[in-house]
Amino acid sequence: MSLREIVATNLRHMRHAKGLSQEELADRAGINRNYVGMLEREEHAATVDMLERIATILDIDPMEFFRKSS
Amino acid sequence: MSLREIVATNLRHMRHAKGLSQEELADRAGINRNYVGMLEREEHAATVDMLERIATILDIDPMEFFRKSS
Repeated sequence: MSLREIVATNLRHMRHAKGLSQEELADRAGINRNYVGMLEREEHAATVDMLERIATILDIDPMEFFRKSS
Repeated sequence: MSLREIVATNLRHMRHAKGLSQEELADRAGINRNYVGMLEREEHAATVDMLERIATILDIDPMEFFRKSS
């Protein structure tokens, strides 16, 4: 499982846990609305700057994006 | 401390721990030689694809890039 896949899976899971749509998350994080969807579909490799912004909105440690499901 | 700074600090530390120069690490990871230096100088936001390649060469879990020093 690639790191991009792990990020996509974790992002979707944590976004749902907060009850946010892709658009809501993007708007709150101040990032492009398409960007969140591209990350969740593994079409784009997230940068650390974007992961930091998203983590702030989701109120998580950025390390959680890289956590492999057990 | 921004996530970009945390990545830069951890990357430099872990690269030194393996006794690799920026150029050696870049060559082994198959990435541009300038890229590693740019990450360590916080001039560029690493993508997860690049962190994954570098982590493989350094033999670490990619989560370690985001670990805050205690």
